[in-house]
Amino acid sequence: MISVIVLGTGNVGTHLVHAFLKTKNVELLQVYSRKKSSLKFLEDKVSCTTKLAELKAADVYIIAIPDDEISNFSKHLHLKDKLVVHTSGSLAMKALKTTANKGVFYPLQTFSKNNHVDLSNVPICLETENEKDLLVLEQVASDISNHVYFIDSAQRKHLHIAAVFTNNFVNHIYKIGFDICKRHQIPFETLHPLILETASKVVQNNPDKIQTGPAYRKDKKTIASHLTLLSGDERKIYNILTKSIEKTYGKKL
Amino acid sequence: MISVIVLGTGNVGTHLVHAFLKTKNVELLQVYSRKKSSLKFLEDKVSCTTKLAELKAADVYIIAIPDDEISNFSKHLHLKDKLVVHTSGSLAMKALKTTANKGVFYPLQTFSKNNHVDLSNVPICLETENEKDLLVLEQVASDISNHVYFIDSAQRKHLHIAAVFTNNFVNHIYKIGFDICKRHQIPFETLHPLILETASKVVQNNPDKIQTGPAYRKDKKTIASHLTLLSGDERKIYNILTKSIEKTYGKKL
Repeated sequence: MISVIVLGTGNVGTHLVHAFLKTKNVELLQVYSRKKSSLKFLEDKVSCTTKLAELKAADVYIIAIPDDEISNFSKHLHLKDKLVVHTSGSLAMKALKTTANKGVFYPLQTFSKNNHVDLSNVPICLETENEKDLLVLEQVASDISNHVYFIDSAQRKHLHIAAVFTNNFVNHIYKIGFDICKRHQIPFETLHPLILETASKVVQNNPDKIQTGPAYRKDKKTIASHLTLLSGDERKIYNILTKSIEKTYGKKL
Repeated sequence: MISVIVLGTGNVGTHLVHAFLKTKNVELLQVYSRKKSSLKFLEDKVSCTTKLAELKAADVYIIAIPDDEISNFSKHLHLKDKLVVHTSGSLAMKALKTTANKGVFYPLQTFSKNNHVDLSNVPICLETENEKDLLVLEQVASDISNHVYFIDSAQRKHLHIAAVFTNNFVNHIYKIGFDICKRHQIPFETLHPLILETASKVVQNNPDKIQTGPAYRKDKKTIASHLTLLSGDERKIYNILTKSIEKTYGKKL
């Protein structure tokens, strides 16, 4: 039985705690949070503490706090021969400043307090300093998710950028569609099935196999007519994405 | 019983034909295609023709052919007192050059031959010249879809632009994520759950309620670090979308 302690009770920490409360091969030994109030809903389920000095001896310590606090926080973890991991997509493993062995346990999903996410479908990206720790971390990850990957710090940086595109930027493009609908008294619901189908298609096919639209068809007339109806950022973004699509698929024709 | 004829057997036409073959209150009287080979799979199910002169007398004629052929094609439909509609998102109703009554029957979804789409979940956007025809078209649409909207030509033009953003442009952003993964030997599957969750979240919330990421947080350090790893179109698109997100949410802070 591998014992883990989760440090932090934000969105990621909370999702991990709930997953570990149900695991068979991993024992959630303790949960740490700076604030006593954040631990209230957990106190009857697992040992809790607000003091680092009271941390128990566990195999793995999982830090789930904001990215910019991880380095400083990890300095206070004097846990020789233990494994300390962070859960950040954007930080390298060496951002951990602890005397312990280091690793990364990055669940690649967008978490929020209102949306429950089933971790069993969430890819967990692992990295460790040494092989032995990787085997331990793989056991922990496999107990909560069916999708475990080994991704080193350099790869993870690029993966994080790809996630910024496919999540943050895609959502901003949705926002533009939403704004256009709102301005013209069109219910945004008319676009819902299209949004879901586009996402569903891309997980079944490579995106270059399903690209369509005026830019892909080089339909100059429609593009020109659309541009007369757009202004500001929307026009700029329409233009740059249209040109990028034309460039991407132009050579193949 | 309202009788309809579908003209065209591309992706949209084929999906409509299959839907109308199952409807209770709408009778599919005939299917037209220029090419005999396109009708092969339908001949045992419904009356088919490759000659406009052989078109039967029906209540509604639904043109489902490429946008740039619709005007010319519709000139050949001499169907006084009948209703002729096109299925295009980007063309105005008046693009129809027929002596018949005009209308639009626009199913807002991305269709392809390999993906079967359940039309009952697809929004159908209707427009007609007169009220009487709108009632007829509404009956036809309601028989195949649970989501029927009245959208005039001006609105539909904007809706089509919104669809270009939320489908074509979103897919191109997916492509960038895909390319980044490929360059760094990361399986694109690691991003699948994120893509599906982002789409699922936006149909449950307005997109401005769920925006996250470095640009939203004004995390200059992460943005600068990402930009050093990007070049060309990817860098340009990262920059313009980051600035647009900063501008969109900057005022509210």
